[in-house]
Amino acid sequence: MNTFGELFRVTTFGESHGPAIGCVIDGCPPGVTIAPEDFAEDLGRRATGRTRHTSQRHEADVVEILSGVYEGRTTGTPIALVIRNTDAKSKDYEDIAQTFRPGHADYTYWQKYGHRDPRGGGRSSARETTMRVAAAVIAKRWLNDKFGVRVRGHLAQIGEVVPRSFDWNAVEGNPFFWPDAAQVAELETYMDALRKSGDSVGARITVVADGVPPGWGEPIYGKLDGELAGALMSINAVKGVEVGDGFAVVAQRGSEHRDEIAPEGFQSNHAGGILGGISTGQQVIVSAAFKPTSSLRLPARSLDMDGQPVEVVVKGRHDPCVGVRATPICEAMVALVLMDQALRHRAQCGDVGDVSPRIKPGKAKR
Amino acid sequence: MNTFGELFRVTTFGESHGPAIGCVIDGCPPGVTIAPEDFAEDLGRRATGRTRHTSQRHEADVVEILSGVYEGRTTGTPIALVIRNTDAKSKDYEDIAQTFRPGHADYTYWQKYGHRDPRGGGRSSARETTMRVAAAVIAKRWLNDKFGVRVRGHLAQIGEVVPRSFDWNAVEGNPFFWPDAAQVAELETYMDALRKSGDSVGARITVVADGVPPGWGEPIYGKLDGELAGALMSINAVKGVEVGDGFAVVAQRGSEHRDEIAPEGFQSNHAGGILGGISTGQQVIVSAAFKPTSSLRLPARSLDMDGQPVEVVVKGRHDPCVGVRATPICEAMVALVLMDQALRHRAQCGDVGDVSPRIKPGKAKR
Amino acid sequence: MNTFGELFRVTTFGESHGPAIGCVIDGCPPGVTIAPEDFAEDLGRRATGRTRHTSQRHEADVVEILSGVYEGRTTGTPIALVIRNTDAKSKDYEDIAQTFRPGHADYTYWQKYGHRDPRGGGRSSARETTMRVAAAVIAKRWLNDKFGVRVRGHLAQIGEVVPRSFDWNAVEGNPFFWPDAAQVAELETYMDALRKSGDSVGARITVVADGVPPGWGEPIYGKLDGELAGALMSINAVKGVEVGDGFAVVAQRGSEHRDEIAPEGFQSNHAGGILGGISTGQQVIVSAAFKPTSSLRLPARSLDMDGQPVEVVVKGRHDPCVGVRATPICEAMVALVLMDQALRHRAQCGDVGDVSPRIKPGKAKR
Amino acid sequence: MNTFGELFRVTTFGESHGPAIGCVIDGCPPGVTIAPEDFAEDLGRRATGRTRHTSQRHEADVVEILSGVYEGRTTGTPIALVIRNTDAKSKDYEDIAQTFRPGHADYTYWQKYGHRDPRGGGRSSARETTMRVAAAVIAKRWLNDKFGVRVRGHLAQIGEVVPRSFDWNAVEGNPFFWPDAAQVAELETYMDALRKSGDSVGARITVVADGVPPGWGEPIYGKLDGELAGALMSINAVKGVEVGDGFAVVAQRGSEHRDEIAPEGFQSNHAGGILGGISTGQQVIVSAAFKPTSSLRLPARSLDMDGQPVEVVVKGRHDPCVGVRATPICEAMVALVLMDQALRHRAQCGDVGDVSPRIKPGKAKR
Repeated sequence: MNTFGELFRVTTFGESHGPAIGCVIDGCPPGVTIAPEDFAEDLGRRATGRTRHTSQRHEADVVEILSGVYEGRTTGTPIALVIRNTDAKSKDYEDIAQTFRPGHADYTYWQKYGHRDPRGGGRSSARETTMRVAAAVIAKRWLNDKFGVRVRGHLAQIGEVVPRSFDWNAVEGNPFFWPDAAQVAELETYMDALRKSGDSVGARITVVADGVPPGWGEPIYGKLDGELAGALMSINAVKGVEVGDGFAVVAQRGSEHRDEIAPEGFQSNHAGGILGGISTGQQVIVSAAFKPTSSLRLPARSLDMDGQPVEVVVKGRHDPCVGVRATPICEAMVALVLMDQALRHRAQCGDVGDVSPRIKPGKAKR
Repeated sequence: MNTFGELFRVTTFGESHGPAIGCVIDGCPPGVTIAPEDFAEDLGRRATGRTRHTSQRHEADVVEILSGVYEGRTTGTPIALVIRNTDAKSKDYEDIAQTFRPGHADYTYWQKYGHRDPRGGGRSSARETTMRVAAAVIAKRWLNDKFGVRVRGHLAQIGEVVPRSFDWNAVEGNPFFWPDAAQVAELETYMDALRKSGDSVGARITVVADGVPPGWGEPIYGKLDGELAGALMSINAVKGVEVGDGFAVVAQRGSEHRDEIAPEGFQSNHAGGILGGISTGQQVIVSAAFKPTSSLRLPARSLDMDGQPVEVVVKGRHDPCVGVRATPICEAMVALVLMDQALRHRAQCGDVGDVSPRIKPGKAKR
Repeated sequence: MNTFGELFRVTTFGESHGPAIGCVIDGCPPGVTIAPEDFAEDLGRRATGRTRHTSQRHEADVVEILSGVYEGRTTGTPIALVIRNTDAKSKDYEDIAQTFRPGHADYTYWQKYGHRDPRGGGRSSARETTMRVAAAVIAKRWLNDKFGVRVRGHLAQIGEVVPRSFDWNAVEGNPFFWPDAAQVAELETYMDALRKSGDSVGARITVVADGVPPGWGEPIYGKLDGELAGALMSINAVKGVEVGDGFAVVAQRGSEHRDEIAPEGFQSNHAGGILGGISTGQQVIVSAAFKPTSSLRLPARSLDMDGQPVEVVVKGRHDPCVGVRATPICEAMVALVLMDQALRHRAQCGDVGDVSPRIKPGKAKR
Repeated sequence: MNTFGELFRVTTFGESHGPAIGCVIDGCPPGVTIAPEDFAEDLGRRATGRTRHTSQRHEADVVEILSGVYEGRTTGTPIALVIRNTDAKSKDYEDIAQTFRPGHADYTYWQKYGHRDPRGGGRSSARETTMRVAAAVIAKRWLNDKFGVRVRGHLAQIGEVVPRSFDWNAVEGNPFFWPDAAQVAELETYMDALRKSGDSVGARITVVADGVPPGWGEPIYGKLDGELAGALMSINAVKGVEVGDGFAVVAQRGSEHRDEIAPEGFQSNHAGGILGGISTGQQVIVSAAFKPTSSLRLPARSLDMDGQPVEVVVKGRHDPCVGVRATPICEAMVALVLMDQALRHRAQCGDVGDVSPRIKPGKAKR
């Protein structure tokens, strides 16, 4: 199951230290303008090695378009994208090829397939997410061209640190996608200390989609929120997903949670823009929790392939906080879900029309 | 999209106040012993009207098996189950047929389909979940017969109240699926006060699956955790999903989170029994957050079908806390995901064998 | 795999002698007008027992709509249809419950599932096709309302007999769907003699769809012709499928086969209205070959469930030529494929527009 | 829809004159031995330019494995194969870029996508089938290793010429896959004359699979014969498909067609090894009809992109009989269907066991 989506289907392939990674996008509408250089911005936002706060693997991430684009526009046939791996240091992994790294997929892949590619985690590496970001570049463009949808994300917590203020303009101005510019220096210090300690920390990311029309989402088992949850949870290291107020709803009262409606629009957005699995026309808001990296210089107890106890110390190039560069990945999954739902909606219900009455989105929450 | 699962496919149908609800289960292995009366227990656990703490709709929920079972055993052909609706009081809904109830799917169905079945929420009603529970009865049986898998759930929080102790034996002894018997009287009082106030409250439910063998789950877009997240989020009123430690990982350190391994088994289970999207052989642990019911006697601002402001007061029979009887629904979705993954695993990798070394599950977390 | 279609998904269930047969239709556009009595015409055309030339099983085939239709129109939610079986004579089958009938699915179901429902062939009975016809009633209506598509079929050969002339008006005026009224008496005699002999004979059916717009069909593995072939071959007793000229192309020259184009439209239709897996805008023309019924009074050699040789004589109520009433079934499969492709087309490419130049269909072939 | 298969999923991409063609195989069992050079034999059998009887396009067809294989064995993760196009002469197509070639997909792609890649037919070219053959190399190997299944094809008719005798050993000894060595010289003369005339001719291909165990195939809409029909019809230029006796059944009597059973096995194989959509354990036999190439030097009437009448003369490198090198493509589709069905069977029913009684296949038909 390496395919995401029902109608805008993205099939990814490739291992962290194999010759290449890539994807095939099937079902893309014809006529979308796209060129190899259009992938650079989002791939750069996701890439390692651009600041000292991420893994020091340096990949150029040059996208080659093998098919599906003719004279700069998508043709409706499958779009194949390939990125060659250039900075794969498989030697780093010789030490751990015979052990199961705690908190990693080494053991589970071994049990599933009776086989294991130890080089950089093989298929289970977050390197795979590069292709999600690449595929989503096309989805984002179509969503924006056709509906004015804009998908943006930011870091909402790192360890115990939360933003003290919120400004979208700050987000792209620092390596953490942090919405409070005044806190960035503090975060730099925090991350430097963490890196020196050899330990890692978790993070929370929030993604907001503006401009989503009402009516997207397919009850019952293709609900917009269900698909978003599945999509975000499929990202490496994610352990929790929220829509709107998320787990805060547990302690809320119904009279507080339900978003009242007035002629000037929705009066609040506790629901995160989704009711009954279908978009309301408000901002769609989701969050994901990223666990701290398990690859540490600090030793851990484990077993080797003979079942004997060993001490594991991981020496490769790893992120002290995987959440730091996961914002574009979360955005990508939201964009892919929205794209797919948009196509599914028009399959069953035709192009979005003017169903009346139409409730105004109300004030943006973020 | 009313079908759940890739290989154990459950397609549900029916509206809250239509003549019947039902499902078709396709892909079930042949030879599973099943009779109409086998559904009674779990359907009773989910049913309304059994205590004063849930909606007072009284449905017998008698399952008729229309196909796929011959001489008490599944044949491998599709299993159709039907339950007639008997206590549908559509008159309750005449008042709200011309308005959009805040926090409900009225408006989104209207925008999607240009059409709306106002009787009890129609398709968007939680009545649909009855069939998930019914289908999961078969899944639970097969999982238990074949692998010894046991899927159990409990209420983990209601409003601000959390369990003070934990005992599986307590869970089935009270109407709240609450794991601390000593707290039940307190909860009864809490719920009575809530009901009288006309308001509602949220809840958290946790489901634990014991006996899941290592190796289930399909990277990348069919990961066990991804599918669980999507499945739980597809339940009415769920706004958040966690695997293992969930959102607590945001503030954890890697040295704390990664579950170390020793000859006697895993030393902890922060991961919730899943690594890289594949089961580890430990307990699989997931949680879901349920929002408070939006149908309240307390008035709310809204618009009518002409776009004019109205005050909505919902008079139907509603749950003051939908989470109270959602435990079997959450169990059902976990069982359906595991069943589906079990079949998918043996399709690609054959019957689960003895891949060595095999790490012991370690101590049960719950 | 009891679901047909990608976006207009029909899941059928039920055994020949179980309590009921039925289907769930998922993905149907909202707003299609439909009532229980709308199914009568096509179900009657398919039904047994209406003339002496078909099996004498008498089923009322009364459709109950369990969901998905509100106030006479589809709502966009799954439509469940159920027909109770009333004339199931399971006793007829006691004789053959312990043997494998030659030419039947008895042995293959036994080998697949290790289990077998001997009553009337269980799931492998053509009774299942009733629900295909029922589901297609909705598809035919939408296709006709929205695009003016009309799907019609006729018997094109029975045994060695072929029509001597062709007139659509004749087709519905005789029990054979025969396009030459002058031959009907001859066919009656032919069928009477066949029935008396205890033997059976094969047939060829042709279906023609008028009004299909150009552009439907999804290369490469969802081609319109590929889907039609799979759909027709899924009908009980079908052993061959042709599109356009079919097997006659083997001996044709390219200069003869390729359909030339002129300002007044296509000059011929050897292709059957499909090129590269996509409709051309001409008549879509397909044919299917039905084998002769294997259930005969004439004895046949076989084995019993102990592997011992036996002589099988089938006494149930069977059709001397299954092709006689298969015309509406073939039409149904063509309609279901077109419906699904129509939705898939608009998902990817939007509503059909006016792409210029548009080639005229040319003269109708049939 | 560029993905074939449910569990052994092959997604192909690439245009005839784009930079590369390729595929991603998802769901392949782990542990299958495969190397880049293993693809050479079947790709060579399918390739153009090896004899004067096929198109003179010369492609090396060198397969690069980008993922999914580690140390010579499949890992269970997606296998990406890529072949660079090296002999694409797009200039040949400048003449026809502004016209619709009769019998080609030019017009239908234009109508579907509002866009068209005129270079060699773009995506609609038979060049795509290269990847089907490549993917099937892996399927053939697994089927053979695990079950002893062997899939072989031969040309069964070309124009009016049919084999006078049958010998599997002859098939691979001539460029036509012809089963009668004595006729090869005659065929050479026939083809030379055809090529000189500028015209083309159709062909029939038959594929036989030995060793298929009973029980494969999924009623109702995943029947083995239904999937084979859909798969073969998806091959470029196929207009008809038969299973077993195919269209000959129309004139057969039931007493002749039904394959009787005796202790020594099935007494005949009119059914082509499939009953009720499930394999019987006999040879699986299918045939396909290929239309004559439409690209001819002989002029044809058509329209240009402005809707004006033109005369089309096609000068590119084309096959006078596409059927000549289609045998490995037909084998590939049969192997892909069998592979997929094998995995689907073991998902639902577990590994094939020893269901008793087991009927012997009987004498091979071919």
